Amino acid sequence: MLKVLVVGANGQIGKHLISLIQNSDSLKAKAMIRNQEQAGFFENLGAETVVVDLEQDIDTIAKAAVGVDAVVFTAGSGAHTGKDKTIMVDLDGAVKTIEAAKVAGVKRFIMISSFDTRREAILAAPPSFAPYVAAKHYADEWLKRTDLDYTIIHPGLLTNNQGTGKIKAADEVARDEIPREDVASVILATLENDSTIGKEFQLVTGNTPIKEAVLSI
Amino acid sequence: MLKVLVVGANGQIGKHLISLIQNSDSLKAKAMIRNQEQAGFFENLGAETVVVDLEQDIDTIAKAAVGVDAVVFTAGSGAHTGKDKTIMVDLDGAVKTIEAAKVAGVKRFIMISSFDTRREAILAAPPSFAPYVAAKHYADEWLKRTDLDYTIIHPGLLTNNQGTGKIKAADEVARDEIPREDVASVILATLENDSTIGKEFQLVTGNTPIKEAVLSI
Repeated sequence: MLKVLVVGANGQIGKHLISLIQNSDSLKAKAMIRNQEQAGFFENLGAETVVVDLEQDIDTIAKAAVGVDAVVFTAGSGAHTGKDKTIMVDLDGAVKTIEAAKVAGVKRFIMISSFDTRREAILAAPPSFAPYVAAKHYADEWLKRTDLDYTIIHPGLLTNNQGTGKIKAADEVARDEIPREDVASVILATLENDSTIGKEFQLVTGNTPIKEAVLSI
Repeated sequence: MLKVLVVGANGQIGKHLISLIQNSDSLKAKAMIRNQEQAGFFENLGAETVVVDLEQDIDTIAKAAVGVDAVVFTAGSGAHTGKDKTIMVDLDGAVKTIEAAKVAGVKRFIMISSFDTRREAILAAPPSFAPYVAAKHYADEWLKRTDLDYTIIHPGLLTNNQGTGKIKAADEVARDEIPREDVASVILATLENDSTIGKEFQLVTGNTPIKEAVLSI
């Protein structure tokens, strides 16, 4: 059983992902949460929990990562927080988690990014969204410059629709929606498929079953 | 005569610096400004000007850097702008300028940073200041990972006091004030002293004449 530390477990994708992991035969989850009060949901699923705030230091995050086999970063400052949190969580929190994985000796790292974090996308974004794109750009760049076994997943517009189990995934796809439930299934398939190591892909709803789509990345 | 592109020329340090450069025997300045209306000050000093906004793309900044021998980045979003500008100017504007120098084939790059941009300083900073420290941290890190001939200058608390011409400069010094006029003189001395290449130093007011202090970095 490989153990997966999910950073941002209490987010909507995180909760779907922990459920999927706990129901899989080969994986088990460790949910990194900000408050002890969030623990009940994960304990009910039989998942381990650890309370760490992403604004703490690398060593504290590293302690949470010791002994796990993979780290999934799916934390986000959210649309309604200030731009200070964009720097402190989406950029600095991500980089500290990457560095913590290195300290803890965890090689596998899956980053849930934004749909398009290329430099051109920073310029093209509306002014209110550009700082978020920039923060995700630099977090992704940081990860790509490590020797971790990374995969960077770029989902389209997240919805709370029920997952269809079918997606379109490639280097570049047309911008479209994707249910959070399907994003979680894609993360699971990515964890189970080492051919995704060193790759990044965009992801929207589509016609190909998730496992098949992830295999062909 | 070596030509120096000053990014953020219209800031207070920038204006002091352009004056010093124009009065030196070995250097001449090219002031990068955001609006044509800012040009008069620099034209009166005999300096070339170029109008570029740091929120434009790398190629536009690179065009301004073609043919110069050094780039000084002393732009800042300022204390009164939102945290979105912290990402877009202090981090992304700096990185775009670094990349522009590479595109333009300019090797020498002097970064005016914040007093302490180490990872520990992000954690230690008050919450309202931490995003700025983080932005400067990542800009400095980006520069250190290039093969540019960089120097990173970390001035203490900036004042508008008249320069004394004397400083304390080292890897680490006790936090103190420093007149902007003296910071500009230190940049000039750094431009004139290639032994500062590949180095970074903190800088406060002190007892050592600026040229002597910079020589011993």
